[in-house]
Amino acid sequence: MKTAYIVSTGTELLLGNTMDTNSEYLSRELSAMGFKVIGRATVGDNRDMIKSALRTGYELADLVVCTGGLGPTLDDLSREAAAEVLNLPLMHSEPEMERIRDYFARRRREMPESNRKQAMFPAGARILANPVGTASGFMVSHNGKTLVMLPGPPREMETIFKESLKPLLRDLIQDSGRVVLTRTIKTMGLGESQVESLLEDVIADPRGCSIALLAKDGEVHIRVTGDGVTDSGTRSILDSVIERMKDSLGDNIYGEGGDTLPGVVVRLLRDKGCTVAFAESCTGGMVAKMLTDIPGSSAVFWGGVVSYSNEAKTRILGVSDETLKRYGAVSPETAREMARGMRNLARSTFGISLTGIAGPEGGTPEKPVGLVYLGMATAEGEETRELRLMGGRGGIRTLAAKTALDWLRRTLERK
Amino acid sequence: MKTAYIVSTGTELLLGNTMDTNSEYLSRELSAMGFKVIGRATVGDNRDMIKSALRTGYELADLVVCTGGLGPTLDDLSREAAAEVLNLPLMHSEPEMERIRDYFARRRREMPESNRKQAMFPAGARILANPVGTASGFMVSHNGKTLVMLPGPPREMETIFKESLKPLLRDLIQDSGRVVLTRTIKTMGLGESQVESLLEDVIADPRGCSIALLAKDGEVHIRVTGDGVTDSGTRSILDSVIERMKDSLGDNIYGEGGDTLPGVVVRLLRDKGCTVAFAESCTGGMVAKMLTDIPGSSAVFWGGVVSYSNEAKTRILGVSDETLKRYGAVSPETAREMARGMRNLARSTFGISLTGIAGPEGGTPEKPVGLVYLGMATAEGEETRELRLMGGRGGIRTLAAKTALDWLRRTLERK
Repeated sequence: MKTAYIVSTGTELLLGNTMDTNSEYLSRELSAMGFKVIGRATVGDNRDMIKSALRTGYELADLVVCTGGLGPTLDDLSREAAAEVLNLPLMHSEPEMERIRDYFARRRREMPESNRKQAMFPAGARILANPVGTASGFMVSHNGKTLVMLPGPPREMETIFKESLKPLLRDLIQDSGRVVLTRTIKTMGLGESQVESLLEDVIADPRGCSIALLAKDGEVHIRVTGDGVTDSGTRSILDSVIERMKDSLGDNIYGEGGDTLPGVVVRLLRDKGCTVAFAESCTGGMVAKMLTDIPGSSAVFWGGVVSYSNEAKTRILGVSDETLKRYGAVSPETAREMARGMRNLARSTFGISLTGIAGPEGGTPEKPVGLVYLGMATAEGEETRELRLMGGRGGIRTLAAKTALDWLRRTLERK
Repeated sequence: MKTAYIVSTGTELLLGNTMDTNSEYLSRELSAMGFKVIGRATVGDNRDMIKSALRTGYELADLVVCTGGLGPTLDDLSREAAAEVLNLPLMHSEPEMERIRDYFARRRREMPESNRKQAMFPAGARILANPVGTASGFMVSHNGKTLVMLPGPPREMETIFKESLKPLLRDLIQDSGRVVLTRTIKTMGLGESQVESLLEDVIADPRGCSIALLAKDGEVHIRVTGDGVTDSGTRSILDSVIERMKDSLGDNIYGEGGDTLPGVVVRLLRDKGCTVAFAESCTGGMVAKMLTDIPGSSAVFWGGVVSYSNEAKTRILGVSDETLKRYGAVSPETAREMARGMRNLARSTFGISLTGIAGPEGGTPEKPVGLVYLGMATAEGEETRELRLMGGRGGIRTLAAKTALDWLRRTLERK
């Protein structure tokens, strides 16, 4: 099995206020591809420390991936450190220089002189072009070892990883003679221990596969990894394990692999020829934001109302003052009228509403923080659901938004 | 300045599904105490890897803190690794053995034989008793270097850190006679190289402070660290450097330390007695979501409309069909009418609109992906702004949302 070592650079990471999300991302991606990640190091913007970390990785592992320090400023030192560790001179790349000049030209800005150094790469390096920034990455393979340098901003790093690096690394893995395959299925609405007990039989007899659960924001992801000699053999064992899991988990599974809950909802809406509009109170636009993260959502998402104040509920959605006065903004009655009003305004297949108390203030003994009502209006009438959520303001909002999307998903799947 | 190196152990950390919160915690705590954290390593449950990481730390830093691997099972190897690196034999501690037996007795359980090894410590080590679990930590000082081993479960690690270790480390720092202080100022709307060139004079003469820039999502954070002999002396140097930066950066600075852009906007709205409502097209609820992330935003945020479809723009916001037909949904004219319609509906101080092309589809040569118009309506009338953004759908949406919030911030600051 090929081994990998991850290095992240950046003094800010060592102060503990900035999460080192790059290392987590790379650990997950490289493990899923079949690399055995044997270690990680985080160092500051200090050339000797970067060199020492790169050297350690280069000694111990087949692949070293380093992020950060490819920017134009004086404390961006990874480029130089890599060249020294590899004992290769830095060479100017005119095509990269052109690309960087073009980057600035498109923004109608002059390229600062300091950006010139971003066109320098160790001799013989394969450039991993950055489609979303000035700092391109690079990869050098030598004596069966591979060193990859990527920029630090997570969006740039992830884009380069997905678009250029992943296919190159896949070639590297295939050379090693073992076939490692991974599939991930994703559930929403169950706790980690519920999933574990539903999967008890499969976990007790995983037919040589390794099974890992990952719980996050109301979802539990189940990653199954099989490791065999042939592709077809490994695949068929993996498939049989996944089939048994699907039998146990039923429609708690919303998708697989790269699926996201909002992505699945958009696809189902499109497949069933439906549209939706959201009236959001406690989630303040979060559901609409999640849905519109998905390219092409405009075909199925009419729009929404963030009815944060009572006035917004009455003036736009037509919730009655009487209802608000008698039952309060956080009540099944208000959720029902919000959903109905939203659907009438949008003339959409579904009108969905959310109203609740996200905290930290605003809770009472009868209506505590975490109490959320969902409403769903269709041609057949309205339904409401009561949720009692925990997890602080952010957690409550996220769970409410995702539960609303999941309710819509389950409804669409039965349609 | 005393230096520190952090090692965390645990194979699960290298799969990327479990966040390495211990490293973040220790980075933050040690930095705040005045240690300069120079590096971090994460390794699996492998004795050689643990030894190699401890040795690297021991060579480079004055203090090494390692978490994990002190449990009773076979893959708990940190105790043995530490003893080998220190070249000290492991000795049985009868008082610790008593404590562990007592721990089980109180839970009316028999102590498994495997727990015996948790009473073994390198000769001469100072035991850091665990009040909430069986795995106690320990500390060994030798030749001016200090090695600390702590258990991995975050609650146990943090309890031992706070209750036993922190006072011992404070003694260590005081011996070094240095005071280290850090301040961070945050800007929005400038690129990293623009900030660097505005700060050229300060960077050229930082009066002994170290200055680091961190760019993310349109923001650049500038961290200044000062290191002196007295608290007041260090503070006054730091203050003077920050003052010079403020002169150069002006109102590009939105805040300091733990401030966030939406948090500052909510505070300014409240301080100036203003309210706001957002009409969002391309950002699809993202601005409303960012603002309502802030507790207490309901006092200043009336609500919003996610006018994703043209119908939503006409039916709720009263944008005219004529404007949409003649200029298109992505135009200054539409942005203007959206902002005006939003403000009229909400009767708020500000009505702010966003309409643009987030991509990946939908761009044309005249109106490319990344073209966004912002509108701002006040009692004085409307203004619009044109943005040309890059960075993929997610990046364009985030930048558009934050630029709208920043426009509101600058307007409020001048009020």
